[in-house]
Amino acid sequence: MAKKSSTYKDAGVDIAAADKLLEGLDRAIASTKQPWQVGGIGGFSGLFKAPSRGMKTPLLCACTDSVGTKVLLAKLLGKHDTVGIDVVAMCVNDMVVCGAKPLAFLDYFATGGIRQSVAHDVIAGVARGCRQAGCALIGGETAEMPDLYAPSEYDLAGFAVGVVDAARVLDGKQVRTGDAVLGLASTGVHSNGFSLIRKAFSKRELKGALGLRLLKPTRIYVRELLELQRNGLMTAAAHITGGGLPGNLPRCLPKGCSVRIDRRAWRIPAVFKHIQRKGSVTDEEMFRVFNMGIGMAVVCRPGKVERIRGILSKMKQRSYVIGEVVKGDGEVTM
Amino acid sequence: MAKKSSTYKDAGVDIAAADKLLEGLDRAIASTKQPWQVGGIGGFSGLFKAPSRGMKTPLLCACTDSVGTKVLLAKLLGKHDTVGIDVVAMCVNDMVVCGAKPLAFLDYFATGGIRQSVAHDVIAGVARGCRQAGCALIGGETAEMPDLYAPSEYDLAGFAVGVVDAARVLDGKQVRTGDAVLGLASTGVHSNGFSLIRKAFSKRELKGALGLRLLKPTRIYVRELLELQRNGLMTAAAHITGGGLPGNLPRCLPKGCSVRIDRRAWRIPAVFKHIQRKGSVTDEEMFRVFNMGIGMAVVCRPGKVERIRGILSKMKQRSYVIGEVVKGDGEVTM
Repeated sequence: MAKKSSTYKDAGVDIAAADKLLEGLDRAIASTKQPWQVGGIGGFSGLFKAPSRGMKTPLLCACTDSVGTKVLLAKLLGKHDTVGIDVVAMCVNDMVVCGAKPLAFLDYFATGGIRQSVAHDVIAGVARGCRQAGCALIGGETAEMPDLYAPSEYDLAGFAVGVVDAARVLDGKQVRTGDAVLGLASTGVHSNGFSLIRKAFSKRELKGALGLRLLKPTRIYVRELLELQRNGLMTAAAHITGGGLPGNLPRCLPKGCSVRIDRRAWRIPAVFKHIQRKGSVTDEEMFRVFNMGIGMAVVCRPGKVERIRGILSKMKQRSYVIGEVVKGDGEVTM
Repeated sequence: MAKKSSTYKDAGVDIAAADKLLEGLDRAIASTKQPWQVGGIGGFSGLFKAPSRGMKTPLLCACTDSVGTKVLLAKLLGKHDTVGIDVVAMCVNDMVVCGAKPLAFLDYFATGGIRQSVAHDVIAGVARGCRQAGCALIGGETAEMPDLYAPSEYDLAGFAVGVVDAARVLDGKQVRTGDAVLGLASTGVHSNGFSLIRKAFSKRELKGALGLRLLKPTRIYVRELLELQRNGLMTAAAHITGGGLPGNLPRCLPKGCSVRIDRRAWRIPAVFKHIQRKGSVTDEEMFRVFNMGIGMAVVCRPGKVERIRGILSKMKQRSYVIGEVVKGDGEVTM
């Protein structure tokens, strides 16, 4: 029997499908356009100019992150238009805590087989996240990898590049004991702890209202933090992701400092209590895995608290004074 | 019966393992250090200064790519120290074709469960690739995602940031009909076509010498192309990846140009013939999926060919005159 001639499509890789996908996303991608971009998407790489007006020594800033297993919940619910916002949020929130303005974003979307509608929703979500963060979607990679991923599964990672004046980098050195710690409200669990969530609840429990609440996209704090940064109001900031407040707050502190958190300063949202109850998780572990209602922490001089809270309130961002910087060895006590 | 208290580790995510991994890689990461880096790895994001001495308008350049299913071959052979070079190569080769110098790199390593030795080898390979490309490994993400990936499987993607003077961007506009097309030898299949390869051969056939040959890391052409660029010798360049010569050459051409390739100009390496025979793949499809021995194409004025070949030869890079630019509509004829 004669063997059939193989093509790459037989082997599970459809280059035409990837091209077609990009065509359908033209408008969404174009909507993220920024004045510092040079040329459009489609070359071998994306070009842009770092706007550095008024900066003495512009520094570039880059970071990468993924949505984690939140993508599995998206698949369970068949709702793929929010995880793109999450992946942008995970990167740009990490970036803005050092004082940098996100300029450009690239996504990495890997799947067992490109389903046009799923891929479209995911990447349109990335574009929406980029608009919220004020950065340009300058490129990305759509990788079709049969055998590594199941046909209907995908992973989503991202990469952001930004700029900050060297004189204004938030590197912890400005923090002093006595500084106040403000907590900015999260929109829910954001993009961390989904492995635990999927263990605490059955698939049936996750389908429906609870799943949709958990899928709510991660808050993007870029505009708020850049506004505080422009006004020189922050001494540090920390994006509260995996590791929670105790894992992430120390990353923005100088040596010799700890943080004392007042757990009564804010109300822990019901969704966390629900997870804790169903999963029989200790308080300590909950605070180590989840943001517990605080998606971003801002450190400032005590005298700036009211002005900061006023700015945030105008931008419709709830905030709480959740603690203060004390002498110590990088610990977070509750 | 009382339920056992859940921890994040029970749910399959071991944050301590990720931290331990990074400790063991300190030296490899430090070996990629470049003078433009600011601070070390470990903050929320990586900082660096774009060296722009002598540039009138420095532009930033960013791109992302992955190794594709070459990671599955690495797993089959239990050899994980080369795919890191591949992921750097895929990104920096894409970047250098627009004339940009890679400055910083970030990796995204996602797995079902962190195995210290595998993760160590993969990321040490990334560091080796960064050294070859002369760029700094400034950050990365190690994502542990039980359920999305099998415990022993992983995906590997990367992101590169570079800089180029606006006046020296290779955007195709410098290309004219009559320009010569030089082909730079590849080291083998590089990082494309592995879905087809895994279909053409059995797992047993891939274990051993053939598998090792296929696993050979992708050639990094950064130093060679930057040397040609410094001397103003190229009018364009194209990284030959998925899509092959016909898919990638047109991406570096201006409107109104095609390329005529002389297939007798170089000898197609035996490994491609072996794949073609075993997989019953047509000539056309082979050229659409594989680099067929040419990993990078450089376009130049005919008068520069000898000087370029001299420079490449000194750098131990084999090259061939494989074709010329002709009038046309972005086609590649053989």
